[in-house]
Amino acid sequence: MMRFPSFAALHAACLDLPAGDASAAATAASHDVRLTKPPGSLGRLEELAAWLARWQARHPPRLERIEVLVFAGNHGVVAQGVSAFPAEVTAQMVANFGGGGAAINQLAAAAGARLRVIPLDLDRPTADFTEAPAMDEDAFLRAVATGYEAVPADADLVCLGEMGIGNTTSAAAIAAALFGGGGARWAGRGTGVDDHGLARKRAAIDRAIKRHSGILGDPLHIAAALGGRELAAILGAALAARCHHVPVLIDGFVCTAALAPLARLRGDGLAHATAAHVSAEAAHRALLEELGLKPLIDLGMRLGEASGAAVAALILRAAVACHTGMATFAEAGVSDKL
Amino acid sequence: MMRFPSFAALHAACLDLPAGDASAAATAASHDVRLTKPPGSLGRLEELAAWLARWQARHPPRLERIEVLVFAGNHGVVAQGVSAFPAEVTAQMVANFGGGGAAINQLAAAAGARLRVIPLDLDRPTADFTEAPAMDEDAFLRAVATGYEAVPADADLVCLGEMGIGNTTSAAAIAAALFGGGGARWAGRGTGVDDHGLARKRAAIDRAIKRHSGILGDPLHIAAALGGRELAAILGAALAARCHHVPVLIDGFVCTAALAPLARLRGDGLAHATAAHVSAEAAHRALLEELGLKPLIDLGMRLGEASGAAVAALILRAAVACHTGMATFAEAGVSDKL
Repeated sequence: MMRFPSFAALHAACLDLPAGDASAAATAASHDVRLTKPPGSLGRLEELAAWLARWQARHPPRLERIEVLVFAGNHGVVAQGVSAFPAEVTAQMVANFGGGGAAINQLAAAAGARLRVIPLDLDRPTADFTEAPAMDEDAFLRAVATGYEAVPADADLVCLGEMGIGNTTSAAAIAAALFGGGGARWAGRGTGVDDHGLARKRAAIDRAIKRHSGILGDPLHIAAALGGRELAAILGAALAARCHHVPVLIDGFVCTAALAPLARLRGDGLAHATAAHVSAEAAHRALLEELGLKPLIDLGMRLGEASGAAVAALILRAAVACHTGMATFAEAGVSDKL
Repeated sequence: MMRFPSFAALHAACLDLPAGDASAAATAASHDVRLTKPPGSLGRLEELAAWLARWQARHPPRLERIEVLVFAGNHGVVAQGVSAFPAEVTAQMVANFGGGGAAINQLAAAAGARLRVIPLDLDRPTADFTEAPAMDEDAFLRAVATGYEAVPADADLVCLGEMGIGNTTSAAAIAAALFGGGGARWAGRGTGVDDHGLARKRAAIDRAIKRHSGILGDPLHIAAALGGRELAAILGAALAARCHHVPVLIDGFVCTAALAPLARLRGDGLAHATAAHVSAEAAHRALLEELGLKPLIDLGMRLGEASGAAVAALILRAAVACHTGMATFAEAGVSDKL
């Protein structure tokens, strides 16, 4: 039997999320003030240690097993001329991931993380959502389940990312459907589309919003009608991570848009997730603001592939190293405040 | 004989700086566009790889030997009640560094860097600069030379940082002397001083600026009169790094203020240095703007000890990993743009 046999079952699962462990977070905070530094002086590193403790539901938090999950999918909307690269690049890049040649291979290794790439029916692109729902219920729920199953229950952190030529158009369409503003607000240059391509992208988004106006009140139907298999899988992976007490690093614009429906269904639906970075794709900043997410880094990256999440994982490692490795004032014989 | 026998000799050395290697930087840029990603999509990671190539004067850049140098000093100005911690904490923290219990021990290890701590005459604080120059010419030049000698010529990167109770007051005084605005603009809470301490800090800076008004036209005299031994050593270390083709990561407010005189003496004096982070100490952002430096991270850190620089070193590692490890479009059989 499928993990989520219907929209209704998935909807129920999205509402039935475990809370974080307030006690583990409190233990982290009380340990932190004993460490040999002025209180608060490590800034977000301190918050991240407590956040990891809360969502791993243990103290001390640890980062022995970091899993980078990159989901890949193809998109019918590329027929509208919305991308600077041909659709076959999705499969070519999946092969490049397999060969170790992509950015994420280097970045996952730098972060001491395991990389797993999950292609989703690359030879069957989603429908062109300017003409029909990108996915029917079955295709959508299967992709969500694939993402769900990809998360190891014993991981200490998952970095979620994607590869899919055309998928910034899907992301922009989801953002437009959830937050309004149309193609003009949410379409950007993605991998580097020119002015004409950008105009086509905006128009495609606006046509899609009009065509699917009947389902705009339902975040999961939006994800199915305007998203893609890799976006659906990311949503499923975040859901699994929450259930398994595995904190999440969100990559860029596409990944954030994939997760936005979860936040719309339930206000704290992404509390176990941190925005790794803010992309050079301008709509990403706007989307993070809509979701109340504060990115860890802002380095002008716009590659996807979980690349921003892998870089941010290094910062989480720094946070855990300080939290678990530092001496206390008492241990070190250092005077506390005057 | 001393490396810098006089202010004049040091002044001459600060003006006689090697340029970066434009050819190595160009090779990095032309290699970058062949890698399997849309051009520009790694944002600042791409710029950092080229910057490292330029200032290491070689392509590819490498980061096998990262050296974290933490200079420590004590400050007579603590007599004015400007710090939340007693002066003996400087030596206690140096001992904590030696014992491996401080934040920088964990962060240097996380960055795969070697940590070296260099205390400078901790039992002889500088003079209280509200009453006299902090250092005379001899003491200042000795501290600069100590910093200069601390940089290994074969390092691939140095992260510069400091420890010194009271030294955000020195940093603020240097910034006020170089850029104007007085204590109101440059004094902040440092390690966590209260409102009364902050008022005393502002007043001390304003008194110092008035007392030393005769030397405010000379950046090196400012560094001697208002700085501290650890700040002087940081200046010397940056000078050595430039001469040895070793790029520099600048830590927080104190470290930036220590290097500001070099930028005032010569417009490109800090071209081989990147600002690792922007501190929660508000004056740091203002100082970085005055110097045209764009920080890599903004995580609300305000600890010093090279802690921000060590975290940013992780980002440089990510940049080099991508630049040197990724496949080209041709190697990976990935289609270039449409």
